[in-house]
Amino acid sequence: MHTREHSLGEIAVRFGLVLRGDPAVRVSHVATLSNAGPGALSFLANSRYRRNLESTRAAAVVLSEEDASSCKVAALVGLNPYLEYARIAAVLHPGAAVLPGIHPSAVVGAAAQVAASAMVSAQAVIEDGAEVGDGVFVGPGCLIQRNARIGADSRLDARVTVYSNTRMGRRCIVHAGAVIGSDGFGFARDGAAWVKVPQVGGVLIGDDVEIGANTTIDRGAIGDTVIEDGVKLDNQIQVAHNVTIGEHTAIAACTGISGSTTIGKRCMIAGMVGFAGHLSIADDVVVTGLSLVSASIRKAGSYSSGIPIEETRVWRRIVAQLRRLGRTTRASRTGIG
Amino acid sequence: MHTREHSLGEIAVRFGLVLRGDPAVRVSHVATLSNAGPGALSFLANSRYRRNLESTRAAAVVLSEEDASSCKVAALVGLNPYLEYARIAAVLHPGAAVLPGIHPSAVVGAAAQVAASAMVSAQAVIEDGAEVGDGVFVGPGCLIQRNARIGADSRLDARVTVYSNTRMGRRCIVHAGAVIGSDGFGFARDGAAWVKVPQVGGVLIGDDVEIGANTTIDRGAIGDTVIEDGVKLDNQIQVAHNVTIGEHTAIAACTGISGSTTIGKRCMIAGMVGFAGHLSIADDVVVTGLSLVSASIRKAGSYSSGIPIEETRVWRRIVAQLRRLGRTTRASRTGIG
Amino acid sequence: MHTREHSLGEIAVRFGLVLRGDPAVRVSHVATLSNAGPGALSFLANSRYRRNLESTRAAAVVLSEEDASSCKVAALVGLNPYLEYARIAAVLHPGAAVLPGIHPSAVVGAAAQVAASAMVSAQAVIEDGAEVGDGVFVGPGCLIQRNARIGADSRLDARVTVYSNTRMGRRCIVHAGAVIGSDGFGFARDGAAWVKVPQVGGVLIGDDVEIGANTTIDRGAIGDTVIEDGVKLDNQIQVAHNVTIGEHTAIAACTGISGSTTIGKRCMIAGMVGFAGHLSIADDVVVTGLSLVSASIRKAGSYSSGIPIEETRVWRRIVAQLRRLGRTTRASRTGIG
Repeated sequence: MHTREHSLGEIAVRFGLVLRGDPAVRVSHVATLSNAGPGALSFLANSRYRRNLESTRAAAVVLSEEDASSCKVAALVGLNPYLEYARIAAVLHPGAAVLPGIHPSAVVGAAAQVAASAMVSAQAVIEDGAEVGDGVFVGPGCLIQRNARIGADSRLDARVTVYSNTRMGRRCIVHAGAVIGSDGFGFARDGAAWVKVPQVGGVLIGDDVEIGANTTIDRGAIGDTVIEDGVKLDNQIQVAHNVTIGEHTAIAACTGISGSTTIGKRCMIAGMVGFAGHLSIADDVVVTGLSLVSASIRKAGSYSSGIPIEETRVWRRIVAQLRRLGRTTRASRTGIG
Repeated sequence: MHTREHSLGEIAVRFGLVLRGDPAVRVSHVATLSNAGPGALSFLANSRYRRNLESTRAAAVVLSEEDASSCKVAALVGLNPYLEYARIAAVLHPGAAVLPGIHPSAVVGAAAQVAASAMVSAQAVIEDGAEVGDGVFVGPGCLIQRNARIGADSRLDARVTVYSNTRMGRRCIVHAGAVIGSDGFGFARDGAAWVKVPQVGGVLIGDDVEIGANTTIDRGAIGDTVIEDGVKLDNQIQVAHNVTIGEHTAIAACTGISGSTTIGKRCMIAGMVGFAGHLSIADDVVVTGLSLVSASIRKAGSYSSGIPIEETRVWRRIVAQLRRLGRTTRASRTGIG
Repeated sequence: MHTREHSLGEIAVRFGLVLRGDPAVRVSHVATLSNAGPGALSFLANSRYRRNLESTRAAAVVLSEEDASSCKVAALVGLNPYLEYARIAAVLHPGAAVLPGIHPSAVVGAAAQVAASAMVSAQAVIEDGAEVGDGVFVGPGCLIQRNARIGADSRLDARVTVYSNTRMGRRCIVHAGAVIGSDGFGFARDGAAWVKVPQVGGVLIGDDVEIGANTTIDRGAIGDTVIEDGVKLDNQIQVAHNVTIGEHTAIAACTGISGSTTIGKRCMIAGMVGFAGHLSIADDVVVTGLSLVSASIRKAGSYSSGIPIEETRVWRRIVAQLRRLGRTTRASRTGIG
């Protein structure tokens, strides 16, 4: 990461914060309260860490009015310190610059449309009919297939696969190894065998979407899989064909969403949650980790079915008791074991 | 996707369907009943959508005799409408053609055997001793290691890794990011440390197998990991060393199968199911989502252990009650929390 | 795999084993007891397979003193047969040789430091400022970003992405599709929307670490994500920002670890386990498959919360009973269904 120096005075003005300290002091990078040294900007957004505030050697700390009195170094006082920290950190640690041009090892189809301000990195492939917008970063080894479209200022980190019929909005970020637009899992029975159902839809992705490393998003069977504006997907998430994810919903790693399920806006889904197919999930729903969502959710709220661990010997007793709950008759079970 | 126009008369004859309507009408693409317009072929395979039939503007609908009377547009009447739809859709939306030849940016070993009718795309790598059969499509960025073999008419979409000692049959489809033949997870203890156990087996894949995006299949430790004919694997599945999956079994996304487990023929495994190792699963077994299979299954049937969500405040009471089930003594627990 | 012939006498001396049989007999490869033929070395480490010992046609078997009396072919007797087998197998089946040099299709920055003894394969990309140590194997399609460092004798199999600020030790093995150093999942709320929190830390990986296919390890938000010496990670594991995994801990496939959780040394974590964030897990902890770890674990031991399958019709009754446990009042539920 590149870093740049900025004075506290400049930061206070730019981000609308109240500065308690010397406006000429300069910061060059971010650090945690406990690891900060000279030139470091830190933040306090969780009162659990307030004890670290007293001993911090940071040059300045972004924090709330409530915590400011305990701060012995320069304080940048705001209403939402974590948000304000995020914005300052982006200034101190800007991402790698997008240097317009196409690396000589990249393979770009003669009929591909790549904006002059876009950067296409080594070993990338952009097929005929693909469109790459202004300021887009196409990282090493990325593939953009024919007729796919990448909106302005989006960033495909490395080894991202974008299949045909994907339309991605502006300012999206896609991390390494993600696959967007692979065939959905659709088969019709033909006796014992399966016949592939052609997957002819696409993927429609809004603006400001972030997609994690090795996450997979299937194209629609007919019609599109839809990821609305501002959705944030962590690593190794699976999004099946014809799913819709509503704007500003955030989903943690390893969650899987089956086909044709619609998730509402502003939902927060934890990791390793499984959604069955053809469900409808309301706006503002929270689902905690390792839960199974097998029916639609009609109202906002928090939902769970993950069971916290016990010591294994205790857990075995619980499972034995659970099994007893299922025995309404004395019929012996013969299928398992 | 490319599309082609076909008359209903031609389709009815080719697929053995009864046509009720004008045989000269032409269709060019597929659509859902509710989104169809002129030139669209649709289908009705689930009576839940019968109400959409009355208002559809599709040129023709593939459906059963039972539903045909409610159809106000041309009807193609068959015995298994979803299967017949799948076959017609494959004609209307053929996949990208395989154009024989090797892209100049691909790296193909002098001692690799690539059929003249195969297509090797940009940035692909095919090592010495690898064999690529007739009509095979090797997509951008794919890697086929030495001594791996890809059967005729198979398709590796993009960025697929095929390690050495993989033998793949005919007409297989592998989606982007899949890894076939990586080392299994085998280590011997040496005091506190682990010593790697060399993984010297391979992967044997039958005909007509489909492997989803970012799915991983490990090579055998000794002997092969085996995926039989007609198996369909969704995205992000993990198949460990020396697993065998029986023919025509279909497995949904994010499921993991531990080493040396054998799954029978024609099983249907839902998403995010975990299989322990060294198990034997009978033919025709169904496992529902988020289940843990920790013992062998000896007879066909449907098995489950996923718990559907509750509102979190209700769920917490359930978990508290569950814990009570495990307390046969008053011993305090000290390990967790 | 290449194989080499060795005499039993040579093997016995080299690995400190007692040979019962002809020291001039030569072995060239490993096999299971039941599949072994002439020239094969096999092993018996699990008494469950002792019956296979009597009928084996292996040239020699590595086994314990206790089992040696049942062995009718040459016996190599040791104290830890599986470990001794692992070491002999590595001699019989050495990995592909590292042939120093840079493939002409690879793209290596002018300011990258690549040891003369390292091998850089086809289509790889090594950016300016990256360091690749002695004897390192960089497989086809791998990417090593600026300022990343790969220690001596490490092996990146194929299509591995190593982001900037990753420092990897010696003798590590990374399998295809793994992503190391992608951004952590960090966002600050801004009304309904999310603002990205810059992820400016790195990933610190010790010596002798193995990382499975398509596994993802995020860089720290501030400070590093740490994988200590000797850690073994299977395929499709997700390691979030600022996680620490203690030395010699082994984790099976599909497990996910949320941000800032610390896992102790010598732990054994099964597959598809979910860890919440900000936890502290003691040394020598075992967690069984499909468990949810949502609180810290303070003492060594075995922990579980995965429920083994039942027949679906039985399971439905259990779930119905479970729900009853949560109903302390008669209030109707309206959220789900």
